Amino acid sequence: MDFAHCLPIWNKLTADQQEHILSVSEYRRVRAGTILHDGSPECMGLILVSSGQLRAYMLSEEGREVTICRFFERDICLFSASCVMPNMQFDIFISAEKDCELWIIPACLYKNLMNESLPVASYSCDLISHHFSELMWLMEQIMWKKFDERLAKFLLEESALENTPSLTITHDKIANHMGTAREVVTRMLRYFQNEGMVRLTRGSVEITDVKKLALLQGE
Amino acid sequence: MDFAHCLPIWNKLTADQQEHILSVSEYRRVRAGTILHDGSPECMGLILVSSGQLRAYMLSEEGREVTICRFFERDICLFSASCVMPNMQFDIFISAEKDCELWIIPACLYKNLMNESLPVASYSCDLISHHFSELMWLMEQIMWKKFDERLAKFLLEESALENTPSLTITHDKIANHMGTAREVVTRMLRYFQNEGMVRLTRGSVEITDVKKLALLQGE
Repeated sequence: MDFAHCLPIWNKLTADQQEHILSVSEYRRVRAGTILHDGSPECMGLILVSSGQLRAYMLSEEGREVTICRFFERDICLFSASCVMPNMQFDIFISAEKDCELWIIPACLYKNLMNESLPVASYSCDLISHHFSELMWLMEQIMWKKFDERLAKFLLEESALENTPSLTITHDKIANHMGTAREVVTRMLRYFQNEGMVRLTRGSVEITDVKKLALLQGE
Repeated sequence: MDFAHCLPIWNKLTADQQEHILSVSEYRRVRAGTILHDGSPECMGLILVSSGQLRAYMLSEEGREVTICRFFERDICLFSASCVMPNMQFDIFISAEKDCELWIIPACLYKNLMNESLPVASYSCDLISHHFSELMWLMEQIMWKKFDERLAKFLLEESALENTPSLTITHDKIANHMGTAREVVTRMLRYFQNEGMVRLTRGSVEITDVKKLALLQGE
């Protein structure tokens, strides 16, 4: 996909801005498994995904990983551009989960665009708010309430009880069992699905990676 | 302080925008201790602090609180305006730590401003990035590495050893002891200071609330 089709706000840029961003952005192909950013404060620029799939995650000292988010076709990843976000002092890792075609946009150029173009500023604002909300949710459910652990445990116990990896149960029912809201269950199940641990269909949850799910149960 | 002096981007608004925001924003005085937002999804609007001090925090089921950030004079709090930030699905609490004078800006008006004014969009973008970075840091250090626990333990042990609440030690030395970077130590000590647990002066750390610090040590 060419740059213009990749960047969601391309049509909202002026001809000058389009020419400039195109002339300085760098096209790159990377293999699945490549680590693009390793938590160093180095500012590599923004990554625009033309094809493939990226994953941003945190890594604990004991090697546990928590996925912060994924980036697909036409998504832009700001986490690799610490200079665009003030006070970016955290360690985040970005890896290619599939073979990818990427565009690297220099951070200084993007920063300038944000300061002169309303569409770029609004778009970035939406992006960051979205990430912020996701992060708060993750923090709340995973780090704090350990809801991932509890849900993993529940699914594995149900599966053992019913003697099948494919549970016929609604999200509502699970929520009742666990004393939480349906939305929380649905969102965590989707997180599990993205991590390849379950497959969701209407009215059922199929466990596709028992081992990975069991690892979540904690000590 | 009047509205115009409170809002950092006031001078970058058009006369029409100024008039509009002024006519719909609501002035409110609240006493220290008032809970302004209690984690409900209700969108009360943005809070602009004219005087006083607000605290935004998360509350666990066991009643443990983690301060996400504080808001002072001329700060704007977006967390109470879930409709401005997409997918805001987390429970955040906002309380007045001191007697406050506040302006409540309707969220829909602010949302419109963000879509039509570059200064408002840029300003909001910077705000949210800042909160995002802070949150990542908190998540990493507190939720994940339990660095708050470890630092609290270290300070209390040193204090017992030296038999004084006032430790003569540099952040560099603490960082060496704990196998981390000076910046991380400084930032966490400031977090402790904001929470009223220590007082920092050049070359020394004075423990001002042993009990609160001891509570951090965990089980």
